[in-house]
Amino acid sequence: MGKRFFGEIGPVKYEGPKSDNPFAFRHYDPERVVLGKTMAEQLRPAVCYWHNFGWLGSDMFGSSTFDRPWNNDDMEGARRKADAAFEMFSILGFPFFTFHDKDVVPEGESLAEFGRNLADITDLFAEKMLATGAKLLWGTANLFSHPRFMAGAATNPDPDVFAFAAAQVKNAMDATHKLHGANYVLWGGREGYETLLNTDLKRELDQLGRFLSMVVDYKHKIGFKGVLLVEPKPQEPTKHQYDFDVATVSGFLQRFGLEKEVKLNLEVGHAVLAHHAFEHEVALASALGLLGSLDANRNDYQSGWDTDQFPNNAAELVPALYFVLKQGGVAPGGFNFDSKVRRQSIDPADLILGHIGGIDACAGALLAAAAMIEDGKFDAMREARYAGWNAPAAQAMLQPGATLESIAKRVMDEKIDPKPRSGQQEFYENVVNRYT
Amino acid sequence: MGKRFFGEIGPVKYEGPKSDNPFAFRHYDPERVVLGKTMAEQLRPAVCYWHNFGWLGSDMFGSSTFDRPWNNDDMEGARRKADAAFEMFSILGFPFFTFHDKDVVPEGESLAEFGRNLADITDLFAEKMLATGAKLLWGTANLFSHPRFMAGAATNPDPDVFAFAAAQVKNAMDATHKLHGANYVLWGGREGYETLLNTDLKRELDQLGRFLSMVVDYKHKIGFKGVLLVEPKPQEPTKHQYDFDVATVSGFLQRFGLEKEVKLNLEVGHAVLAHHAFEHEVALASALGLLGSLDANRNDYQSGWDTDQFPNNAAELVPALYFVLKQGGVAPGGFNFDSKVRRQSIDPADLILGHIGGIDACAGALLAAAAMIEDGKFDAMREARYAGWNAPAAQAMLQPGATLESIAKRVMDEKIDPKPRSGQQEFYENVVNRYT
Amino acid sequence: MGKRFFGEIGPVKYEGPKSDNPFAFRHYDPERVVLGKTMAEQLRPAVCYWHNFGWLGSDMFGSSTFDRPWNNDDMEGARRKADAAFEMFSILGFPFFTFHDKDVVPEGESLAEFGRNLADITDLFAEKMLATGAKLLWGTANLFSHPRFMAGAATNPDPDVFAFAAAQVKNAMDATHKLHGANYVLWGGREGYETLLNTDLKRELDQLGRFLSMVVDYKHKIGFKGVLLVEPKPQEPTKHQYDFDVATVSGFLQRFGLEKEVKLNLEVGHAVLAHHAFEHEVALASALGLLGSLDANRNDYQSGWDTDQFPNNAAELVPALYFVLKQGGVAPGGFNFDSKVRRQSIDPADLILGHIGGIDACAGALLAAAAMIEDGKFDAMREARYAGWNAPAAQAMLQPGATLESIAKRVMDEKIDPKPRSGQQEFYENVVNRYT
Amino acid sequence: MGKRFFGEIGPVKYEGPKSDNPFAFRHYDPERVVLGKTMAEQLRPAVCYWHNFGWLGSDMFGSSTFDRPWNNDDMEGARRKADAAFEMFSILGFPFFTFHDKDVVPEGESLAEFGRNLADITDLFAEKMLATGAKLLWGTANLFSHPRFMAGAATNPDPDVFAFAAAQVKNAMDATHKLHGANYVLWGGREGYETLLNTDLKRELDQLGRFLSMVVDYKHKIGFKGVLLVEPKPQEPTKHQYDFDVATVSGFLQRFGLEKEVKLNLEVGHAVLAHHAFEHEVALASALGLLGSLDANRNDYQSGWDTDQFPNNAAELVPALYFVLKQGGVAPGGFNFDSKVRRQSIDPADLILGHIGGIDACAGALLAAAAMIEDGKFDAMREARYAGWNAPAAQAMLQPGATLESIAKRVMDEKIDPKPRSGQQEFYENVVNRYT
Repeated sequence: MGKRFFGEIGPVKYEGPKSDNPFAFRHYDPERVVLGKTMAEQLRPAVCYWHNFGWLGSDMFGSSTFDRPWNNDDMEGARRKADAAFEMFSILGFPFFTFHDKDVVPEGESLAEFGRNLADITDLFAEKMLATGAKLLWGTANLFSHPRFMAGAATNPDPDVFAFAAAQVKNAMDATHKLHGANYVLWGGREGYETLLNTDLKRELDQLGRFLSMVVDYKHKIGFKGVLLVEPKPQEPTKHQYDFDVATVSGFLQRFGLEKEVKLNLEVGHAVLAHHAFEHEVALASALGLLGSLDANRNDYQSGWDTDQFPNNAAELVPALYFVLKQGGVAPGGFNFDSKVRRQSIDPADLILGHIGGIDACAGALLAAAAMIEDGKFDAMREARYAGWNAPAAQAMLQPGATLESIAKRVMDEKIDPKPRSGQQEFYENVVNRYT
Repeated sequence: MGKRFFGEIGPVKYEGPKSDNPFAFRHYDPERVVLGKTMAEQLRPAVCYWHNFGWLGSDMFGSSTFDRPWNNDDMEGARRKADAAFEMFSILGFPFFTFHDKDVVPEGESLAEFGRNLADITDLFAEKMLATGAKLLWGTANLFSHPRFMAGAATNPDPDVFAFAAAQVKNAMDATHKLHGANYVLWGGREGYETLLNTDLKRELDQLGRFLSMVVDYKHKIGFKGVLLVEPKPQEPTKHQYDFDVATVSGFLQRFGLEKEVKLNLEVGHAVLAHHAFEHEVALASALGLLGSLDANRNDYQSGWDTDQFPNNAAELVPALYFVLKQGGVAPGGFNFDSKVRRQSIDPADLILGHIGGIDACAGALLAAAAMIEDGKFDAMREARYAGWNAPAAQAMLQPGATLESIAKRVMDEKIDPKPRSGQQEFYENVVNRYT
Repeated sequence: MGKRFFGEIGPVKYEGPKSDNPFAFRHYDPERVVLGKTMAEQLRPAVCYWHNFGWLGSDMFGSSTFDRPWNNDDMEGARRKADAAFEMFSILGFPFFTFHDKDVVPEGESLAEFGRNLADITDLFAEKMLATGAKLLWGTANLFSHPRFMAGAATNPDPDVFAFAAAQVKNAMDATHKLHGANYVLWGGREGYETLLNTDLKRELDQLGRFLSMVVDYKHKIGFKGVLLVEPKPQEPTKHQYDFDVATVSGFLQRFGLEKEVKLNLEVGHAVLAHHAFEHEVALASALGLLGSLDANRNDYQSGWDTDQFPNNAAELVPALYFVLKQGGVAPGGFNFDSKVRRQSIDPADLILGHIGGIDACAGALLAAAAMIEDGKFDAMREARYAGWNAPAAQAMLQPGATLESIAKRVMDEKIDPKPRSGQQEFYENVVNRYT
Repeated sequence: MGKRFFGEIGPVKYEGPKSDNPFAFRHYDPERVVLGKTMAEQLRPAVCYWHNFGWLGSDMFGSSTFDRPWNNDDMEGARRKADAAFEMFSILGFPFFTFHDKDVVPEGESLAEFGRNLADITDLFAEKMLATGAKLLWGTANLFSHPRFMAGAATNPDPDVFAFAAAQVKNAMDATHKLHGANYVLWGGREGYETLLNTDLKRELDQLGRFLSMVVDYKHKIGFKGVLLVEPKPQEPTKHQYDFDVATVSGFLQRFGLEKEVKLNLEVGHAVLAHHAFEHEVALASALGLLGSLDANRNDYQSGWDTDQFPNNAAELVPALYFVLKQGGVAPGGFNFDSKVRRQSIDPADLILGHIGGIDACAGALLAAAAMIEDGKFDAMREARYAGWNAPAAQAMLQPGATLESIAKRVMDEKIDPKPRSGQQEFYENVVNRYT
């Protein structure tokens, strides 16, 4: 079985920054060692199934523009789709892929049929993975596209939908486990509300906490060794999505005692839609011990919806990569390209070109962040800023014995009158730019 | 000592919806009983010191426009300011006021002098409160205006600033306690960052948690019976403020074990700046048991900074008031008018007119929300939507014994295939509009 | 042929503010006279075809949720759709409807077939209009859904698409003319760009100007008496849409000498997406002589995409209605409900309920704005603010003879040193609230 | 008289990309020739007076943090300020500077005194310019800070304010003319409104048009050879500013017949606040023949107010520089650093470091854009996309003779059925990244 969908394209190789071969990597050199691991091991890039093989170019104002030789109507179409998908994984040579249950097979007429279809196609996946070396970064269940989920899955006012979702997640976890997925993701696309007028917020949050607890239990039951990941997004398709951002999910996990069991999958575009810088979400998740994996993309800054574009500005990603490297990398998570070509990019080649530009941007940021860390000057500046806290009197204030009164007395006695010191933001920015 | 600053204006009385007296209330009838309390008891409106008596009309592009016969240079000016403030409280007849330490006295040359000034002016306040009946809804410390706080107070890289802030809060809590304040508020205006490049997020969050723990301890130490309130805001003046929104602060309080000790003071405009509907913040805080008090204002929807305008659209506030009433009201919190007249509204009369329009909007929303609740139809619709969860099989899924497997088995056995039901958002919206 | 799709619902009648009949108008009383016209004549409400009969509930994350007994596959389905549409027009009793060519018939295999289909269905429309009294507020051509338009219609890099679009618009104008449409609308959904990198802005703008000029010529050629309307929107589906907002289109029309030939159709939600208050767009269009018609809806303030919800807050619409009435109304334009029920509102009844709530909000705003104008106090306040400009010396500055030098001399000679006067924004807001 | 304010810093020299000298340029090499001009001639960088020497670090929530050895109270302070300013110009070696009248002298008690002060200080400027080689990129009048302008300058409801503003602008133009300014700028900071309720939009726009016409007349009267520039901004300090964005000002200029007399000064941050990409504003202004000069800075993407930060991401600026170079550069305009150090950047060195990082980002973008143009591949791709329009039948459609009917006939006759071609956005993006 030769190449079919992508014609003569690939395999894509590293040719260095001076290459003008459109189908070569200019920064992503999989075998190059960066901070003790290869770039492939640091970034663990993944191709996603849905944007590349599910979406056909429709948007809210127009119909499909992509002409693809497969469909989701039957298993025959699903197998043709799998052929194209694994062809693409091989062309790019990314070590990982990701999928939703519904991306890869038709749902059929019943949950039972859906389950059988999923079992069948993942048998095929297993063969192809063996043949190509592609691995599964994570699997997930689509609990948002079917009309039954229009008012939520776990948070639905109808308990039968909760039940159906539970059964569907069990199947998707089984499939992910079978394929030795490194993680399992939950994105609650409809776990939210359109209007508070018809919504019992407390009840729905409790349902969601209960659901996630059962997912954790089931992971342990089946011996799945991957990491469970919740993916925050503030809104869209709902007006408000319960897993709004890192801080929100962190609080949610604590309320249900799940903060040691579940980590986060952070998406650049979702950070932007939540009005955060991406590095904020990364730094906060890392500080809270919740940074699990990343969805690499970008969101247009002037568009208020999820544009899922390929990243293309390495400098912009440097701070996020810095925080990733400072926690020792993101494995067993990775960089999943939850990115889609534009609706006008109708050629198969565009899919490849998008990923090349995307991974090159990430690789450029990785190299810069690693150089910053290896150099050490930047870290030293950061530590010096807080050096005053190393003094015993300062440390004492952070210990249980200290009180407002005792501190106030010291302020009065010592006539403490702190003088401002420059925050040097412009200098920090200039220093970072040395490494890009 | 007669009226001085506001001339012949007031006292403002309720005259009913048909009144065209600019200096009369059209909806706020303090003695009218609504759901078992007077409107004054339900809303507990407060006049704030800072916008009315501190701010002089400057903005980032222009100097002061208000000509006020007081200053903050010395205690003489502070007393003239207090005269005008209590004159205004009496004109409006609102039961409460609020202040920052720095609003009411000059800081002087040292913390000691600042403390003495604060003690002196609050003695005067105590007299005036006795004379006029005005009460203190809450006090707070300004830890954001002085240059020493430019890089944060509790979260400052310099431990001396942490210490200074601790001492200042102690004084402000003492003052609030002396005046029998119903609450004490912490708004962390500079507790955040300008750039993550020079910021150790984890360290700063730990400092903030430690600081708040000491505030809680001190409250108990001095026997202050009021509620401690943290006020979320997403940003401004900082690029990112740690107390971003309700969900963020909720998670923060849990991490430091403070969720039973601290509640929230929610501001309409801060919700808008965090890209939430105000009713979202209210409903979520209430669901989490954290709804403590409210800052009544509005934010221009097209402006990306804190506009702190007076509320003027009652219908828009109805959902928030509904959630407030569903939890039995907001006492010992209240509705603090953290609202300022526009920079062009330079006449003393404008201060009065702003508050009249603001409390009338809140009162209109209160009446509508109370009518909704008394009628019961709206609540019945909401409950019916979730009625399926009352079934034993549904309830069982929410209990510890249930698992993904057991539920999946039931879905298969019973061939559960849920059918969507209308969410009826438009009908809910129409029903709410019946009461306004 | 009796009612089919909507069952027993309607006809909807006015029952007054106290009615709790879900299927009655509470504020919209079609025959009530307001400022010399009936409410129906003032508002000229229209039901749109696309949201009610074209959209089936899909969004970017989920498939259709509405079960409708028609389709767009063939003319048989198109006729069933028309039956339901005219049934709805009659139930609501709105005087007008609106449609795109593609809403009402299948495109078929060729432009010729599309044209024949359109001619056929509009013959049926003509019969139904006669039978029911429904009139056409405006027609339009859909130049954005078909893949051929993915890179624009008039602004496409491919001149064949420009040609195709021209032919399609001709057909749509013919159909609108045949049905005595009061206006013809052009919304350039794909007339914009996804990235400037592949876009020649100047060339595309010139193409667009040329296209619109031909539309104007054709209007005169066929003797169409309706008004040509361009509908501004800032973005979505494109990253940037050329007809961004009122000011942008105004400049565009002037550049091509079309400012006397074309007016604007303003949509509430599009104003919000352009980060304008709706009343800004209305007031500016009116000031420029370009206010032609309105698309009544609302956009969620926290969502960055076109939510097209039904308006439900009358007070919020009062300023816009005030400016509409000040220019003598919007006829021959009207209030087209470019509003859709939520994806969860799957019952036929929801379509009716949405329109009832929407027209009641508009009617409430109309009554308030009319009362403001009849009372005269508000207008008097506005005029008094500018009264200084009535002085001869002031008027002279606005006349050609005046120069910076002559004015500067007068300032020096007369020692002009203007003193600020209160802008009284809070008072203006309170006065407006008296009428709602 | 030696260096005083900046101590031992500077002069700043180019040391190349590998330099880690904080006080060296890494990309900005003034004498390096790029597309036929030196980098200094291409960029024409300017230091602004207001952010560096006027602002003292206050914001809406805090007082001044900068300790500066000058003031604006008297002419003695103004001269000390000028010494520091010209010291800084020399350290950076930028060829230009910019100022508002009010930045450089105290207003004094009257317009006459203000005028005398301005005449005096500009005599000093003339000497210093001769001594240092610094030139004036543009001057302007501050018509927004003084309380008299709180409701606008030219658009004020009080004609005396209009008159005062006219006289003040005359003085500022005279000063700019005296110093051989290359341009004169008008930024209408308060030319807008806070609420439409108290605003007569049409009247105010007419006042503004009249005012600008007089400015044009005066330019010709005095023989000023520089370019008049209007600077768009959408809002802040006003809720809505009349010179909203490029498209808005373009329409405004046309309405008053000024489109040949006035160009635009575009600011990165103002574009962002108007929800445009900066390259959009640049490309549109260039297409309309209105691109005059640039204010180089950046705006935080998560902050809704004017953050005026130094640019620091060269890749992000490449598209804008490309459009600048495609029109042959921006002279007699330039790149004015309307950028300010953060409030915490309190050291004099921070002012220098900010400008170094900023000009290096612009220089990097200039080099990349120039390389793109010299290479020619990118331009060729863009032209090929529109190549179909070169055909005679295509060109004919853009000429007066063509009509919808004639085109429609051709579509039918030739059975034109255009097929989509890939827009290749990802490829365009990748190609651009080759040059950075």
